[in-house]
Amino acid sequence: VEPSSPSVKTAVPGPKSNALKRDLDSIQNTELVRFFVDYARSAGNYIMDVDGNVMLDLMTQIASIPVGYNHPRILKALMDPANLSTFANRPALGMHPPAQFGSDLSNTLVTVAPPGIDQVMTMACGACSVENALKAAFMAYRRRERGGNPPSQEEIQTSLKNSPPGCPKLSALSFNNAFHGRTMGALALTHTKWVHKLDFPSPNWPIASFPYLKYPLEDYVNENKAEEAKCLAEVEDKIATAQKSGQPVACIAVEPVQCEGGDNFASGQFFQGLQDICKKNGIALLLDEVQTGAGASGKFWLHEHFYLRDPPNLVTFAKKMLTGGFYYTPDMRPTEGGRIFNTWIGDPGKVVLLKTVLEVIKEDSLLARTEDTGKYLLQTLLDAQSKYPSLLSRARGLGALAAIDLPDGASRDKLVDKLCHKGIHVGVCGSRTMRLRSTLTLERKHVDVFADRFYAVLKEF
Amino acid sequence: VEPSSPSVKTAVPGPKSNALKRDLDSIQNTELVRFFVDYARSAGNYIMDVDGNVMLDLMTQIASIPVGYNHPRILKALMDPANLSTFANRPALGMHPPAQFGSDLSNTLVTVAPPGIDQVMTMACGACSVENALKAAFMAYRRRERGGNPPSQEEIQTSLKNSPPGCPKLSALSFNNAFHGRTMGALALTHTKWVHKLDFPSPNWPIASFPYLKYPLEDYVNENKAEEAKCLAEVEDKIATAQKSGQPVACIAVEPVQCEGGDNFASGQFFQGLQDICKKNGIALLLDEVQTGAGASGKFWLHEHFYLRDPPNLVTFAKKMLTGGFYYTPDMRPTEGGRIFNTWIGDPGKVVLLKTVLEVIKEDSLLARTEDTGKYLLQTLLDAQSKYPSLLSRARGLGALAAIDLPDGASRDKLVDKLCHKGIHVGVCGSRTMRLRSTLTLERKHVDVFADRFYAVLKEF
Ligand code: FES
Repeated sequence: VEPSSPSVKTAVPGPKSNALKRDLDSIQNTELVRFFVDYARSAGNYIMDVDGNVMLDLMTQIASIPVGYNHPRILKALMDPANLSTFANRPALGMHPPAQFGSDLSNTLVTVAPPGIDQVMTMACGACSVENALKAAFMAYRRRERGGNPPSQEEIQTSLKNSPPGCPKLSALSFNNAFHGRTMGALALTHTKWVHKLDFPSPNWPIASFPYLKYPLEDYVNENKAEEAKCLAEVEDKIATAQKSGQPVACIAVEPVQCEGGDNFASGQFFQGLQDICKKNGIALLLDEVQTGAGASGKFWLHEHFYLRDPPNLVTFAKKMLTGGFYYTPDMRPTEGGRIFNTWIGDPGKVVLLKTVLEVIKEDSLLARTEDTGKYLLQTLLDAQSKYPSLLSRARGLGALAAIDLPDGASRDKLVDKLCHKGIHVGVCGSRTMRLRSTLTLERKHVDVFADRFYAVLKEF
Repeated sequence: VEPSSPSVKTAVPGPKSNALKRDLDSIQNTELVRFFVDYARSAGNYIMDVDGNVMLDLMTQIASIPVGYNHPRILKALMDPANLSTFANRPALGMHPPAQFGSDLSNTLVTVAPPGIDQVMTMACGACSVENALKAAFMAYRRRERGGNPPSQEEIQTSLKNSPPGCPKLSALSFNNAFHGRTMGALALTHTKWVHKLDFPSPNWPIASFPYLKYPLEDYVNENKAEEAKCLAEVEDKIATAQKSGQPVACIAVEPVQCEGGDNFASGQFFQGLQDICKKNGIALLLDEVQTGAGASGKFWLHEHFYLRDPPNLVTFAKKMLTGGFYYTPDMRPTEGGRIFNTWIGDPGKVVLLKTVLEVIKEDSLLARTEDTGKYLLQTLLDAQSKYPSLLSRARGLGALAAIDLPDGASRDKLVDKLCHKGIHVGVCGSRTMRLRSTLTLERKHVDVFADRFYAVLKEF
């Protein structure tokens, strides 16, 4: 049963967390471990650490808990004997799928497919979802260039040697402050912190500026329009430069909201413009919804707020979806078998759990609740910002995604730490942003608890 | 309960598999789907398809089923209430590990660590295990080059832009016919089939020849020694060339046995020589045991057969380990937090299942059994080869890994297909190799069943 309020008895991390951390550190670097968790005793929106501290969780495992800890329906699905063999026998899904796999996909991923898309592949995490979506885009690009002809012997032979023309000089364009994952291809699209990037060889693909909007939006309509137009012009410019330099852009990868990079929002018009540029240049548009999808915005996919004229070519997901994967338009579908493939290609056990999550979202009207709670949370941040204008700025959010800026990283970190000791667990992103990522089951009463502690901390500041 | 013999009633794939495949094909390319499986009714070493065909499984989901289908101990672990919260709440493992995570690792991955290594990170699949092992190697290389100094501002800034010096021109050397995974970094080490590679941009890293041994080994001692010496010389040559071209080799990645590439074995001397070259040049040695580890060779790690003078720097695993991950020597340990990191960093639920698997391996002495059954299986292949010398050659194997060559790909595929219709499910690799990958619970009686059907097929050929 979910507690009704936080309760913090020790420092966080407390003595038990610190002891466990020392132990674990003997076999791996644990510098980023915040605290150890008693998952059996965490419930709903509250997380309990091993020292018995109970915190309202507004970061939820980097936005990856969809309906709260130990949701009774998930526990039931795990104990259902009908699901047992799926959990016990992880298949090589591309060769030997379970009998019910097709219908499981039809009843899960297909029912929540972004408007206009019905092709979908499962994957096992966000990074391989992005990597494989990129591969689909590269194949589609070369398929079109070949005009229906099969690959040449030279292409086939050189591909095995990592060399052109088989491994062509193609690129994917990404944005400053983007985050798409940490395997080599996904990492080439990532430009957040040096710890993510330093020392790792990378293809030198083009990077354009992502809009940095001024808030409150209603006061800066023209400035923000100009900012977005400037960024779109830069995208076109980088595409032309890449083309000239012999490394044409086959794909533009973009988050509907840049999360790790600082909760940077851009308008629907910006994304419509991006899609226009893609269409004009025969480039695939990859919307990376790993952190923004699964209902977090109040619609199932955040890009539904953009009213794009056509579906994006590729939409990646993971985190709250429990399984990774990507949706794709028919032109992105591989025309040969085994092109998008690996041993596991995801995990049917995660699809079983997703099925339960989607049922809960539907039955409990969690998209509507997330929209409502999100508005209430954003208003709470706006109110606080108007009371503490020298401390807080740029309050922004949509559904379960919410953020507010502090003057600098040090004061942001201090705020987050003080909140933690009052039993509110939040996250950070960018250089000076406090990031909130709740479950879809958050209610107004939880926001009231947050507001109470938030003001208490602000008063002490 | 495991059946005592195969029973095939329909074509494979049968009508039900074909119907399910048509359905699934409406949402994804299913060209490589062989048949749909009734996992609830598969047991031990026998797999049952949806048409009721029961086959002895000697490929086991691309070598990823450690102790057979629906092992009672795995089912029990899945139903154990003490494990429920671990399955229900997948954490952001690098920030909020479960209370018992450290001890779970100590009782599982640490107990079976390769001799001389005690550092280990979990990951979620083979590809990200390799990607992150590579990153550890690149960091270690640059750390040594910096001689203890912190990174420069220029390095930090350029790393965010994918450019040197922050993203340095370093490379990893791999081998012809190697397979290490399908994300961009792992794929740059992979040189098997064009379907794995074509159309995907790749760093142009050096590739050396892997030994191609003549069989029977005892008749070709000198030739094979010369072949391995030639390959080692080529490795040294490629390292020198890479150094000169400004893209030094920071890591050599190699499978102890090349699996996808054709079950290519090399001697312990070869790997010792490779390690010597690495040490001489300050290069990390990455042994990719994704397919060969977890007891498949009769020792827990295949490279234990090589008697290397020092532990390899990096050992990657996945498949039969149920969780991905990599072991690493202390010099490969990241010195800053968050360098080897992602949201999930594996899945503690898989570690829980691994714990059961390791208990079963120990209690049932499955390493010894795998060694014994493997010898019996190899003798069966050798006998068949001496009876059908124009059809079969190069019988080779170690434990649960076994292979034999046919004159060409077409006859190999015909053999595999005919075996399937007699209820023996085997795999392929390379261009003309039949590949066997059993569980660790295979017994002599299963080999007898295989031998019976194998001879029946050979007679018809
Ligand atoms: S790369 Fe996604 S699970 Fe390994």
